[in-house]
Amino acid sequence: MSSQLQGFKQSCTAARKWRALRGLPQNQLQHRRNQLLPNGRVQVGFCTTKSVTLSNIKELKELVGEDAVLTDPEEIASYNVDWLGQYKGNSKVVIRPKTTEHVSQVLAFCNRERIGVVPQGGNTGLVGGSVSLGENEIVLSLSRMDEILSFDDVSGVLVCEAGCVLEKLNDYVKTRGFVMPLDLGSSGTCMIGGNVASNAGGIRFMRYGSLHTNVLGLETVLPDGTVLDLLSSLRKDNTGYDIKQLFIGSEGTLGVITKVALATPASSSSHNVAVLGLKNYDTVALCIARAREYMGEILSACEYWDEKSMELVSENLDIKEPFSQRHPFYLLFETSGSDNEHDVEKMNRFIESICTEPGILDGVMAQDMKQIDELWSIRENITVALKDAKGFTYKYDLSLPKVKAMNETTFAVQEAIQRSYKYPEAKVLQFGHVFDGNLHLNVWNPCYSLELKELIEDTAYTYVAKNRGSISAEHGIGQLKISKLGYSKPEGAIDLMGGIKQLFDPNKIMNPFKVLPPANSR
Amino acid sequence: MSSQLQGFKQSCTAARKWRALRGLPQNQLQHRRNQLLPNGRVQVGFCTTKSVTLSNIKELKELVGEDAVLTDPEEIASYNVDWLGQYKGNSKVVIRPKTTEHVSQVLAFCNRERIGVVPQGGNTGLVGGSVSLGENEIVLSLSRMDEILSFDDVSGVLVCEAGCVLEKLNDYVKTRGFVMPLDLGSSGTCMIGGNVASNAGGIRFMRYGSLHTNVLGLETVLPDGTVLDLLSSLRKDNTGYDIKQLFIGSEGTLGVITKVALATPASSSSHNVAVLGLKNYDTVALCIARAREYMGEILSACEYWDEKSMELVSENLDIKEPFSQRHPFYLLFETSGSDNEHDVEKMNRFIESICTEPGILDGVMAQDMKQIDELWSIRENITVALKDAKGFTYKYDLSLPKVKAMNETTFAVQEAIQRSYKYPEAKVLQFGHVFDGNLHLNVWNPCYSLELKELIEDTAYTYVAKNRGSISAEHGIGQLKISKLGYSKPEGAIDLMGGIKQLFDPNKIMNPFKVLPPANSR
Ligand SMILES: Cc1cc2nc3c(=O)[nH]c(=O)nc-3n(C[C@H](O)[C@H](O)[C@H](O)COP(=O)(O)OP(=O)(O)OC[C@H]3O[C@@H](n4cnc5c(N)ncnc54)[C@H](O)[C@@H]3O)c2cc1C
Ligand SMILES: Cc1cc2nc3c(=O)[nH]c(=O)nc-3n(C[C@H](O)[C@H](O)[C@H](O)COP(=O)(O)OP(=O)(O)OC[C@H]3O[C@@H](n4cnc5c(N)ncnc54)[C@H](O)[C@@H]3O)c2cc1C
Repeated sequence: MSSQLQGFKQSCTAARKWRALRGLPQNQLQHRRNQLLPNGRVQVGFCTTKSVTLSNIKELKELVGEDAVLTDPEEIASYNVDWLGQYKGNSKVVIRPKTTEHVSQVLAFCNRERIGVVPQGGNTGLVGGSVSLGENEIVLSLSRMDEILSFDDVSGVLVCEAGCVLEKLNDYVKTRGFVMPLDLGSSGTCMIGGNVASNAGGIRFMRYGSLHTNVLGLETVLPDGTVLDLLSSLRKDNTGYDIKQLFIGSEGTLGVITKVALATPASSSSHNVAVLGLKNYDTVALCIARAREYMGEILSACEYWDEKSMELVSENLDIKEPFSQRHPFYLLFETSGSDNEHDVEKMNRFIESICTEPGILDGVMAQDMKQIDELWSIRENITVALKDAKGFTYKYDLSLPKVKAMNETTFAVQEAIQRSYKYPEAKVLQFGHVFDGNLHLNVWNPCYSLELKELIEDTAYTYVAKNRGSISAEHGIGQLKISKLGYSKPEGAIDLMGGIKQLFDPNKIMNPFKVLPPANSR
Repeated sequence: MSSQLQGFKQSCTAARKWRALRGLPQNQLQHRRNQLLPNGRVQVGFCTTKSVTLSNIKELKELVGEDAVLTDPEEIASYNVDWLGQYKGNSKVVIRPKTTEHVSQVLAFCNRERIGVVPQGGNTGLVGGSVSLGENEIVLSLSRMDEILSFDDVSGVLVCEAGCVLEKLNDYVKTRGFVMPLDLGSSGTCMIGGNVASNAGGIRFMRYGSLHTNVLGLETVLPDGTVLDLLSSLRKDNTGYDIKQLFIGSEGTLGVITKVALATPASSSSHNVAVLGLKNYDTVALCIARAREYMGEILSACEYWDEKSMELVSENLDIKEPFSQRHPFYLLFETSGSDNEHDVEKMNRFIESICTEPGILDGVMAQDMKQIDELWSIRENITVALKDAKGFTYKYDLSLPKVKAMNETTFAVQEAIQRSYKYPEAKVLQFGHVFDGNLHLNVWNPCYSLELKELIEDTAYTYVAKNRGSISAEHGIGQLKISKLGYSKPEGAIDLMGGIKQLFDPNKIMNPFKVLPPANSR
């Protein structure tokens, strides 16, 4: 088995190295870009926005100050490439405003001049949404708007600027007895404005719900420069249509999020993590049902990965495997509660209830924080290891209504690839937020092939559409999935999206050619 | 004190009698209507929709069948008056479709003929949204679309028609180990479509979050008859703008909700309830903080009411008081968990931690389900007792960012009334979902007075606006609060609401003159 996976192996960077990543060697990017271009992702030809002129740059500098406008190619290189290194933009200008007023002035100017604007947070998005498509858009980076504005330690409501890094916010509220309602593998780099714009999910989703309930208010700047102050700190507000909901998941196409008000839940004093090794996928659903029964209110995460993911992480990163033997599937359960004795008792009862099931091969429960981190790091580093692996990885972030369907999709893809007899080295991996029906399906191959891509997508997306799943559970559409939108969204809804785009951004300056199909975005 | 409250007293109907309520004596309605009209609520004069003709009725019967079209004045009387008996519509036709296809045909017809349509669920809304404003709208009742379509007992996802009564859904999922994520005092009558259309909150909100996270999918019919199938059962779906969010809280102004997919959480096997008697309001915030600390993840409700509410319920309904003496404030805590021993231990620790505080005067913990119901019935019956009381009750449903501000608002209103020296018998009551900052402020007076109404609203809404609160936490805008929208929503947002209305309903046939100010609704 291990020899089959040789393509994965390479001298891998340490885990979480990517947290600080900016830029990749140009040649590698060009290489990938050329590979990727033929599939029609880049629609520069349809552009309706104008290129930035030297005189525009001068005017922009007058508006927001010299130091907020970057034009030095070296300085802006990292803003022009996404985290995966699969998209390379050619923006000539990056603007880094310090205030909402500056954002407003920049947008009003760009709207007048018909200059495209790509808002950017931590640039960790996985669908190419945060880099420009053409040469004529400016990147508007929120990274200098990173102040925490208020925190109420009775209600747990946090108000901050959009450029605050998620991990820093979590550290801040943690010392006050609270916790951010979301956590992602990218938390050291991604920013709260980017999280809201991409409606990020992550590992706390199952416990605390989506940003549609946790975001209480937003300040946004509309494309014409109007500041829309919906920065409410209220848990409840039923005064007409909830406009802010449209910005959650809008990926920068309706306006710029400048401030965010969030409900943060109280943190838990006790955390426990167990990992089980399973013989087959059927046991996954059984374990979830039992976990809910025995651990109910303290259950805070439920993740899974398969044998190939385990092998990848174990053999490429400095990460220990939980068991001496490999197993077909791994399930991680986390509990968070207010009384450790109670929690351990509940988890033990859960483990007792399942350990005699024939599908359970092994199990381990972390004894301290260090072991908790170790177990989590397996799951968290699968994306990292795949990124660092030589070759090319096709990444899919699917949502399915039934736990069962996750494995069936993976299996269907694997079979289709095998049946083609063309990609003997390809590896199909599955992992993800299993409780939420969120499958991260990844296919690794020694090199990029458009045909393989189409084979995977035909199989996976057809299966997803048949099961009323989603082609993007949490990563969004960006530039990557526009042509596939129809697999998940009915035509009527895509038309309404076009109408909403027209209402908010009639000149189509915001993140041009992202999210909406060309017919609906212009 | 008791003599001061005589106006409240009358031979009161049994608790929850209202659950089956339909209609009120006509003379009482006319009386109230005449009282209420002078404040400009009814804008029939601006109507752009046409009256229903006899030939229209004939055509409608052909479309959906004779039995689905009611025109007998007696039969439709109950559809023409809201639960509070404060709004009386004059619709001449009620349509009760059985299928989405029929809803689609009715809407397409009304859109062509420019006939206004008022969607109606259980008609328990408290802002006059579910009854017609003029004589020319039809009422579209969802009450015959009450089928449960599917339930997945691994994921807990329920799919049902919009006319399902909330309580019945709760009974259904309960036997399968789940619970509806919302519960309201009106659950025996209100329908899930109405709940979604009004974005209902209720007593489980603090534990399970808002409908913006729990509604997974909707099937809706747009005003032109297009069926918009967004009936996803997925917990996560980031494929473009989340259109269904706009329908949540749209109060029937964008289209008709015909089917709902909801995430239901697993039910808890253990429930405990405690009520505390408090000396002053300051102790409320202290208790909330301690409850969160000691009961964390098992806390499932946190409600409060004041002495006057206690007196009202105790003296008018057959309901026992929790303590031998009355106290200025009452706080109810509920826990729901998976292990009763653990839960009781946690609650005991909480009670120990606060019982020596000088602001705590008394406390009681329910010993069985009967006692739990008894304690809850106090809180649940305040609205019922107020409705049954002679005289007139001004009802406000405010949202405030800080727990402290709830009492301050109440106090400000009380003081303003006292300072006017005109309403010696008026009583100001407060109760509500205190954890969510949701204050139900009620002012009772022996008779209706427009001047008193304005005095209350000037004081309360100004205070709310100053504190960035909301004039409608959970009840919505309906016809009651349109002119007050500006206290909570900035102009830019109201304009965007108008744009969205125009996009979805260009002929303005859906629930005319509700939610949006006239300038934005046409
Ligand atoms: C290792 C790793 C793990 C990840 N794990 C998860 C996960 O578990 N769950 C998940 O959902 N995602 C995950 N992601 C994806 C990504 O981290 C998230 O989508 C994140 O929320 C993006 O935030 P960002 O600040 O980096 O946004 P960016 O990448 O900068 O931007 C994302 C999109 O939002 C727009 N945008 C950014 N800021 C603003 C703003 N202020 N106003 C308007 N539009 C804006 C951009 O134009 C772009 O379209 C992961 C990524 C990595 C690299
Ligand atoms: C005793 C009592 C207690 C209450 N407690 C609470 C509480 O705790 N929290 C709370 O939030 N509310 C509460 N309410 C208010 C009310 O019950 C809720 O708003 C409820 O959700 C309304 O549901 P309904 O089916 O009765 O809707 P209706 O009253 O029939 O309609 C409400 C609005 O929604 C529209 N509508 C209804 N059905 C549809 C549909 N299928 N498609 C499109 N539009 C539709 C109507 O046009 C109207 O504008 C309470 C009411 C009472 C009487």
